[in-house]
Amino acid sequence: MTTVSIIGGSGYGGGELLRLLLAHPNVEVKQVTSRSHLGEYVYQVHPNLRKRTQLKFSDPAALESVDILFLAQPHGQAQHNIEQYAKLAPKIIDLAADFRLRDAAFYEKWYGEKHAAPGWLSKFVYGLPELRRAEISKANYISGVGCNATASNLALLPLVKADLIDLSAPVIIEIKVGSSEGGAEGSSGSLHAERANVIRTFSAFGHRHTAEVIQEMGVKDISLTMTAVDLVRGVLATAHAKVKQSVVTKDLWKAYRAVANENPFVRVVREQRGIYRVPEPKILAGSNYADLGFELDESNGHVVSICAIDNLMKGASGSAVQCMNLMMGWEETVGLEFAGLHPI
Amino acid sequence: MTTVSIIGGSGYGGGELLRLLLAHPNVEVKQVTSRSHLGEYVYQVHPNLRKRTQLKFSDPAALESVDILFLAQPHGQAQHNIEQYAKLAPKIIDLAADFRLRDAAFYEKWYGEKHAAPGWLSKFVYGLPELRRAEISKANYISGVGCNATASNLALLPLVKADLIDLSAPVIIEIKVGSSEGGAEGSSGSLHAERANVIRTFSAFGHRHTAEVIQEMGVKDISLTMTAVDLVRGVLATAHAKVKQSVVTKDLWKAYRAVANENPFVRVVREQRGIYRVPEPKILAGSNYADLGFELDESNGHVVSICAIDNLMKGASGSAVQCMNLMMGWEETVGLEFAGLHPI
Amino acid sequence: MTTVSIIGGSGYGGGELLRLLLAHPNVEVKQVTSRSHLGEYVYQVHPNLRKRTQLKFSDPAALESVDILFLAQPHGQAQHNIEQYAKLAPKIIDLAADFRLRDAAFYEKWYGEKHAAPGWLSKFVYGLPELRRAEISKANYISGVGCNATASNLALLPLVKADLIDLSAPVIIEIKVGSSEGGAEGSSGSLHAERANVIRTFSAFGHRHTAEVIQEMGVKDISLTMTAVDLVRGVLATAHAKVKQSVVTKDLWKAYRAVANENPFVRVVREQRGIYRVPEPKILAGSNYADLGFELDESNGHVVSICAIDNLMKGASGSAVQCMNLMMGWEETVGLEFAGLHPI
Amino acid sequence: MTTVSIIGGSGYGGGELLRLLLAHPNVEVKQVTSRSHLGEYVYQVHPNLRKRTQLKFSDPAALESVDILFLAQPHGQAQHNIEQYAKLAPKIIDLAADFRLRDAAFYEKWYGEKHAAPGWLSKFVYGLPELRRAEISKANYISGVGCNATASNLALLPLVKADLIDLSAPVIIEIKVGSSEGGAEGSSGSLHAERANVIRTFSAFGHRHTAEVIQEMGVKDISLTMTAVDLVRGVLATAHAKVKQSVVTKDLWKAYRAVANENPFVRVVREQRGIYRVPEPKILAGSNYADLGFELDESNGHVVSICAIDNLMKGASGSAVQCMNLMMGWEETVGLEFAGLHPI
Repeated sequence: MTTVSIIGGSGYGGGELLRLLLAHPNVEVKQVTSRSHLGEYVYQVHPNLRKRTQLKFSDPAALESVDILFLAQPHGQAQHNIEQYAKLAPKIIDLAADFRLRDAAFYEKWYGEKHAAPGWLSKFVYGLPELRRAEISKANYISGVGCNATASNLALLPLVKADLIDLSAPVIIEIKVGSSEGGAEGSSGSLHAERANVIRTFSAFGHRHTAEVIQEMGVKDISLTMTAVDLVRGVLATAHAKVKQSVVTKDLWKAYRAVANENPFVRVVREQRGIYRVPEPKILAGSNYADLGFELDESNGHVVSICAIDNLMKGASGSAVQCMNLMMGWEETVGLEFAGLHPI
Repeated sequence: MTTVSIIGGSGYGGGELLRLLLAHPNVEVKQVTSRSHLGEYVYQVHPNLRKRTQLKFSDPAALESVDILFLAQPHGQAQHNIEQYAKLAPKIIDLAADFRLRDAAFYEKWYGEKHAAPGWLSKFVYGLPELRRAEISKANYISGVGCNATASNLALLPLVKADLIDLSAPVIIEIKVGSSEGGAEGSSGSLHAERANVIRTFSAFGHRHTAEVIQEMGVKDISLTMTAVDLVRGVLATAHAKVKQSVVTKDLWKAYRAVANENPFVRVVREQRGIYRVPEPKILAGSNYADLGFELDESNGHVVSICAIDNLMKGASGSAVQCMNLMMGWEETVGLEFAGLHPI
Repeated sequence: MTTVSIIGGSGYGGGELLRLLLAHPNVEVKQVTSRSHLGEYVYQVHPNLRKRTQLKFSDPAALESVDILFLAQPHGQAQHNIEQYAKLAPKIIDLAADFRLRDAAFYEKWYGEKHAAPGWLSKFVYGLPELRRAEISKANYISGVGCNATASNLALLPLVKADLIDLSAPVIIEIKVGSSEGGAEGSSGSLHAERANVIRTFSAFGHRHTAEVIQEMGVKDISLTMTAVDLVRGVLATAHAKVKQSVVTKDLWKAYRAVANENPFVRVVREQRGIYRVPEPKILAGSNYADLGFELDESNGHVVSICAIDNLMKGASGSAVQCMNLMMGWEETVGLEFAGLHPI
Repeated sequence: MTTVSIIGGSGYGGGELLRLLLAHPNVEVKQVTSRSHLGEYVYQVHPNLRKRTQLKFSDPAALESVDILFLAQPHGQAQHNIEQYAKLAPKIIDLAADFRLRDAAFYEKWYGEKHAAPGWLSKFVYGLPELRRAEISKANYISGVGCNATASNLALLPLVKADLIDLSAPVIIEIKVGSSEGGAEGSSGSLHAERANVIRTFSAFGHRHTAEVIQEMGVKDISLTMTAVDLVRGVLATAHAKVKQSVVTKDLWKAYRAVANENPFVRVVREQRGIYRVPEPKILAGSNYADLGFELDESNGHVVSICAIDNLMKGASGSAVQCMNLMMGWEETVGLEFAGLHPI
């Protein structure tokens, strides 16, 4: 059995990762750390894991060596401790934003601070298998992905891969998100009485995840507009772009199907009947699928590309496990078989 | 114009009270205090009041004299300052639990601490007009009502008033509540991601509001079981009791209709068709109505009596304004005309 | 008292209108029609109106003459009966889409059918006071407004009025809507189990309300993208446009404040602190306000303009009552004073 | 591989069953029938199954023989066709209410109609493994369980099994349910705009599932009070009973732990800290767990026993698969490993 530990296991991303790793047939979870919940049973924080594990949260200072170390801390911590972590494990998968961007200046521009370990940036591979499967398979250090960036990148992937849009033209991505994105700490605006029933456009542009879309997709003029809605899990990205001249719907079908065929967790959803005709995060809770859809206005070339994911799965812990599978040479889908629920 | 001020205006009860008082034709709001939001516009905390008032939160230490002082602080503060408040205004309406119980020993039993101003308990009248209209009309000091106690008291009122149940037999009241009951401060369990989609029986019995039901209804063996559900505003009390021998459905109709006829804010909801056949807090948001319904199993005398209210209106600020109207000799319903919305 | 009747009172728009008219100090409601609920008390369908009225739904074939006739039927009916309705009342306010567009060919393009009474199109004034207050004041026939069109028109109004954007450049409006837009009839996708927790982009472009934005704002290249979210009441429009060269944030402040100053139901929401920094439909349920906000990326001229409304109020029945007030020479805000609730 | 087919696969119970069977390592799904969706891909109705199966809904008249036949039709159909179904498969598991009650007269009392196949009632075993594991293991015909009955039965199980309550004393069970209980057909009250935000006590007593609790637990005087709340999946049963004299909290701990130890899908949830101190359906979506908790008022013997389940899993399809496992001699938990999600 491959041994793994998680640093920072009391947050939502860490909890979801733990759930996946406990059920994964090839790994054994050795330690899960949490300073604030030190000594508590993990099921006291993640109640779905009751009767699944007797693990208690352990002290991050008492970590033992393992085969793979997962980092699920808040942003900004991993870069300060990466040297130490690298001594504990030959392979590291980070879920935070510390090692997503390859360029230190680019990092500084978007995060407003100098990177603490710029020399490590080039050692990490961006952890979205749909974009970097081959590199991930050979990597020892894998970065996490931003959930909003993931929905955006996958919404754009068929268009960019099939060269259907002009990378220098403006792209507007409207993103709607559930409350689990805010994390287990929350703020006054996260209280149920204030957060229920909202449609709250909390960021018009400038969201940090934009940097990952620029880096990975090569688009130059892009904005992510973030709107919170009443849902716990889920992200929907609705991307607006202009296709190149003479592109028609048939070309889009081909491009989207190609991406779905190459990727076990990508599906195209574009039905003419029934209730579920377009991608929706509603049915993706707990699943690792990214559902893609599109509409093209052939009269003016306006394409609307849609991607739905579970932000804690494909947008965080699910992709991390998928990366682990690739890195270890295992079946890409192992441990990620849950289909999602209907209705929910 | 009658002048009024509110001590503690940044909470949910205080905000709702302020909304009602700003729209009330007979009063002028002089001051609203808040230590934590001192100097901010009240509409920055209560965004529905934007363009309605330019009031800013003021310092509770700088209160001026008014005709009526409303206390909307967290429980336990008013009893320490009541002497001082009484010098500021000839009439006081408290929304907290400080002066609800008439007996100091009874208070100590349920609140687990000695009352700080036991001599004041007898000066206050329990502020639920449906129970104490005549006394309220002559009072200078009026206590608030517990929202869960109010739903319970009104569910029992027709049964007790018409002498249909035995006061010494067991009564079980199942109460379902929205998140605004938790207040604007909240806790980790109040975060949207943890509080959405819940059915959480957080208190099996022993809730403090039980004391108000014992005091006002005279029932001896009663338990309130509290369950949080996914809703912001609203309380539903479902009371289970046994009717006296030979009581039939017709007797209940008579008892419930009598209460509705005597009280402008009580309605009986018991329809045979349509979607809304029973009382529901859903349609009461912002309204001061208490909707009552019942079912009787004539085979065994089991009566289920239901009361729905908006916890911030009939269960707090709405009843407080209704008390003010009575105390001042105004039309009981003035300033409380909003009918509620459908759908919502 | 001015007498009014409502044709089609069992739907959501008709119910909301009835609520407003019953509470309006200057009018008396004579009849409310419904074929499917003929003979039922209106409060059996609109339970919030219990104890407010003893009106029953009457037969549309038995309508009597009144001062003002409100039409709240499904789209497509009024245009077939307008001659008959005009004999019943000197003034008509329609809530449906039958008379919103002035040009019969434009109507046919967007609605896919010939208009049944093209000669009447020019007699109606588009019923959004923020756009056509002066004309409405002199009109006898007033059309309704599309709720999504209203949120879009008001999001664009400050930009267009102050000449800050180029009308021929592309405008993308992302609209998020609650379930009450779907109407009281619903469909299989409207079932709670399928409709709860959704983020469902059900229309990428081509929504009929687009026509009203083109007509009223003069924009040429515009798309409305519609996404259903988990909420009952409310619309948020997030408009993306490019400002003209050299336009800066200060210019936008000026333009938005001017619109708010001229219109009693428009507010600018753009706070640096607190929970409610941007316009949100959450706090607008039952209120007639349209809240506006904006963000400008001065580096590339990308402006995001936001408008939040209650679709049944400002987006339908509230605007209709506001039009009535103007048409009758009454205070514009009478009967529309409800401030909305916080929290809700 | 064991072959299975599902009759009635387009409803919520049938869809959930299909999800479980498709992922089950020991079975192969041959046919899924639906008259209304004949010829459609099953993933068009159950969108979570996209990319999991290419099965189409087939004609119930064209069923082939299989090892196990699952019946997931609306109540009242199976009893008319059971002879025919029995020719198609040696083993049958019904999810509906047709064969839950052993006594034909008892059936007639609760369902208001004569049973169409009374001779078959004694051939079926009630399909809740926690109650009838040994019989199920030897059975060929297994009935479904009512979801509300299951939550009630499991709430009472520790009390009854350890002989802690008097079976002839009154038991009141308050049940709160999500909207998926209403089924995929729905009614006007199931529309999102009418069903969101509800606390709707739609049945004070007399619910048909009561019969299953009487039959299985032996309680004589019991009522189930049903309240709909805003949630899609989940049931919470809060049972109120009186313990026998001298029973104390320690006795309850022992009784509840014993049931949890004997049953792989039962957990006791009774924590002194953290957010999740009591059983909650919120975290059970998709899982087969039944979470139990209790509180005892030692002063008067009032016990509150709580059971939370996912109505479509433990309350329907999950228990059906668990029964299949037992009947086939497989590991009881196979195919039911999903732990549930947090947060959700």
